[in-house]
Amino acid sequence: MNPYLELQSRALACNLRLPASGLVTGTFGNASAFDRQRGVFAIKPSGVPFSDLKAEDLPVLDVTGKVVYGGLRPSSDMPTHALLYEAWPDIGGVVHTHSPYAVAWAQAMRPIPVFGTTHADHCDGDIPCTAPMADDRIAGNYEVETGRQILDTLAGVSHLDVTMVLVACHGPFTWGTTPEKAVDNSIALELIAQMALHTLQIAPQTPRLKESLLKKHFERKHGPDAYYGQASSTSKDPSR
Amino acid sequence: MNPYLELQSRALACNLRLPASGLVTGTFGNASAFDRQRGVFAIKPSGVPFSDLKAEDLPVLDVTGKVVYGGLRPSSDMPTHALLYEAWPDIGGVVHTHSPYAVAWAQAMRPIPVFGTTHADHCDGDIPCTAPMADDRIAGNYEVETGRQILDTLAGVSHLDVTMVLVACHGPFTWGTTPEKAVDNSIALELIAQMALHTLQIAPQTPRLKESLLKKHFERKHGPDAYYGQASSTSKDPSR
Amino acid sequence: MNPYLELQSRALACNLRLPASGLVTGTFGNASAFDRQRGVFAIKPSGVPFSDLKAEDLPVLDVTGKVVYGGLRPSSDMPTHALLYEAWPDIGGVVHTHSPYAVAWAQAMRPIPVFGTTHADHCDGDIPCTAPMADDRIAGNYEVETGRQILDTLAGVSHLDVTMVLVACHGPFTWGTTPEKAVDNSIALELIAQMALHTLQIAPQTPRLKESLLKKHFERKHGPDAYYGQASSTSKDPSR
Amino acid sequence: MNPYLELQSRALACNLRLPASGLVTGTFGNASAFDRQRGVFAIKPSGVPFSDLKAEDLPVLDVTGKVVYGGLRPSSDMPTHALLYEAWPDIGGVVHTHSPYAVAWAQAMRPIPVFGTTHADHCDGDIPCTAPMADDRIAGNYEVETGRQILDTLAGVSHLDVTMVLVACHGPFTWGTTPEKAVDNSIALELIAQMALHTLQIAPQTPRLKESLLKKHFERKHGPDAYYGQASSTSKDPSR
Repeated sequence: MNPYLELQSRALACNLRLPASGLVTGTFGNASAFDRQRGVFAIKPSGVPFSDLKAEDLPVLDVTGKVVYGGLRPSSDMPTHALLYEAWPDIGGVVHTHSPYAVAWAQAMRPIPVFGTTHADHCDGDIPCTAPMADDRIAGNYEVETGRQILDTLAGVSHLDVTMVLVACHGPFTWGTTPEKAVDNSIALELIAQMALHTLQIAPQTPRLKESLLKKHFERKHGPDAYYGQASSTSKDPSR
Repeated sequence: MNPYLELQSRALACNLRLPASGLVTGTFGNASAFDRQRGVFAIKPSGVPFSDLKAEDLPVLDVTGKVVYGGLRPSSDMPTHALLYEAWPDIGGVVHTHSPYAVAWAQAMRPIPVFGTTHADHCDGDIPCTAPMADDRIAGNYEVETGRQILDTLAGVSHLDVTMVLVACHGPFTWGTTPEKAVDNSIALELIAQMALHTLQIAPQTPRLKESLLKKHFERKHGPDAYYGQASSTSKDPSR
Repeated sequence: MNPYLELQSRALACNLRLPASGLVTGTFGNASAFDRQRGVFAIKPSGVPFSDLKAEDLPVLDVTGKVVYGGLRPSSDMPTHALLYEAWPDIGGVVHTHSPYAVAWAQAMRPIPVFGTTHADHCDGDIPCTAPMADDRIAGNYEVETGRQILDTLAGVSHLDVTMVLVACHGPFTWGTTPEKAVDNSIALELIAQMALHTLQIAPQTPRLKESLLKKHFERKHGPDAYYGQASSTSKDPSR
Repeated sequence: MNPYLELQSRALACNLRLPASGLVTGTFGNASAFDRQRGVFAIKPSGVPFSDLKAEDLPVLDVTGKVVYGGLRPSSDMPTHALLYEAWPDIGGVVHTHSPYAVAWAQAMRPIPVFGTTHADHCDGDIPCTAPMADDRIAGNYEVETGRQILDTLAGVSHLDVTMVLVACHGPFTWGTTPEKAVDNSIALELIAQMALHTLQIAPQTPRLKESLLKKHFERKHGPDAYYGQASSTSKDPSR
């Protein structure tokens, strides 16, 4: 009996939403699902086409990156996922994609300014962008350093209020209290990134959304008195 | 026996057209259908994925926002819909989306200039954009105030000639004499918004469409002597 | 027995390719198929959703615009089609769409410069754009005047070498020796229009394709010594 | 017995991925598969719709362009493919498309600068662009000259490290150690081209990716110590 099959199946379903949502071309993206009780996560194996994936193929690892179950080599981005789970044990999923509009902002090395309520519904402020990685860190343990950059960039904000980040010259990472919400956040981020570019194309001097409207929309969905969604599923979960 | 099932089913069908037309990602959008005889409307419940919706889930409310039938919590934008139905009893449907090009214009806080006949076929003039909401109104009854802003912005034009508006920093609302036409208008608006951006990218100084051509196209489809469409369905209905 | 059913069926199939190719949203577009022997054409009826069309619904008209068979009111753009068939009896189909990139160029009132071989494979030079219509012509027989503008704009070039035009502030019309080729040309035009916009976004000073390369590509596909395609179908048909 | 059916079938499958991936509209594109043992390749026939293709229709040729099997006329771009196979016997497939973003860069006659890791995962440096072809070469054996331009442009770099090129005013060619990888590279190139345009739209002064990060990503996927993918399929194959 495989004790991780449910976790692997859940991670598989999240991975399959990535190409289905148009976020992923080829094999460039990966989702993982974390089991908070057991402190392990299942992640996409490296370089395997999404259409070929089976639940059993997804390796299960602990937060130090040690394989505890499963035969295929994990995604090369695995150490980044592991570091985030170790730092933030209250999250349940991490997603990395190369979705085109989010990558364009990452390549331009610019945070995405909050311009409207679509953004404010999902993220309490600008979507941050890391600095380009220093050469000595690239030469070191690159994927762990990517995770460290994300943590450094998120320092000072709540990772449950800002659930998405751009890694400079690379692409987006998102997370959430569940793996499904981490995928939702990747989908929302790509849409936000597209809207922000078009907004600047229409009016290059567009100001940031004013704070009162940002707070109103973020709070009505994620605050203590949230009234978006059905009571059972949303008001108790501040991450989405 | 549920006396509202036909209304709920019609509203459901309209809601399902939103993701099918590419206007809606995730749960960000909602359509409602109004029963003019009974003065009630059915609307999407809040935060429920479109693929999970059943007709019975759609709450039915009166124009004061009081639930008259149905168990799920209505869309958080419900009070905006209610206010429009109260103000304009000759409309039959309201739609709100976060479609990307229309949102980009809303975030840029710019009305969409009429540049061509695709626009003129659907809207008798520029597509207006509200002002950003004042802080005291945001702190008040936000969704009712959104409706008031729409009504203020439409003051002085016929809501049957201009069936679409951009709420600044937020996104589009459309309406029509039937809920199906409200959806048609959301689809047309997104296309118009995309075309207008590309037009300005090709020629930033493009002038507005001249009045004679605007009137010609709007009138051939919506005027008293309209000759677009089949006689039975179109010439008597000025809203589309 | 309906003597026009084959013509109607062929016109229907061409119309159905328009939404299937992403060229048409809602009901904004129409294709017609011309029977050169009998001098009549079948065209989409006005305002009918594409998914509801049946072959029998497509009215059959002569080149003066007189209905010779069929019950539904023809597309409001019918007189434009009729005029083109009258002027150019060697064409077999006409298509009009509101595809977004082609419309953007039409709204910007700019011909599409030939920048590359995709364009040169389909059109022997820039894709022309009419002038905006004068007010007295708008007030007259508008759809006939649209056809006259197209003929005026094509004066001096072969309508078999340039099979596409932009009507200013409105959108594209294309044609071909067969109705299927007229649809192919609408599909190619939308792609060419998108590529041309992106080309200028990358390098605003991009020069027109040099004449030698324009001729090479147009001739290898459409010239007397064409060697593109299979011999039976292409080398004898200069229109595609 | 047809000794080339397996090769033809493999080439057919690669051709069919082109419209399925959105890279090809109409008939504008072609893939070929090379049999290194026998020194022959199968290629799409000219001007045949993808949906009508059967494996037997794909002509089989040697690297001088002589047909060794098959009845339909090969793609007009066949001599370009042949020249690449003759020059680079270690490749197994060549693909040519008119995908819109890659064509836009080709029409702008600009190499695509490496801005991020999506690019670095696939190509060790900028994606080169040929010079526009001289008139005497256009007047000569045009498709052979296209191949020569590609070889000239690739002089000085490894064709296994840079597996894609833009032919000025025309469009992209890609290749790989297998025909499937050549298709993968065409898909990746279109995404890279789109991302690069949007990057410049967000920040026109975006610098090239720094060399340390370019090498890190290219090497982790294609270098001697590559650790991307599953060991059996990737670490031994430097082309993808």
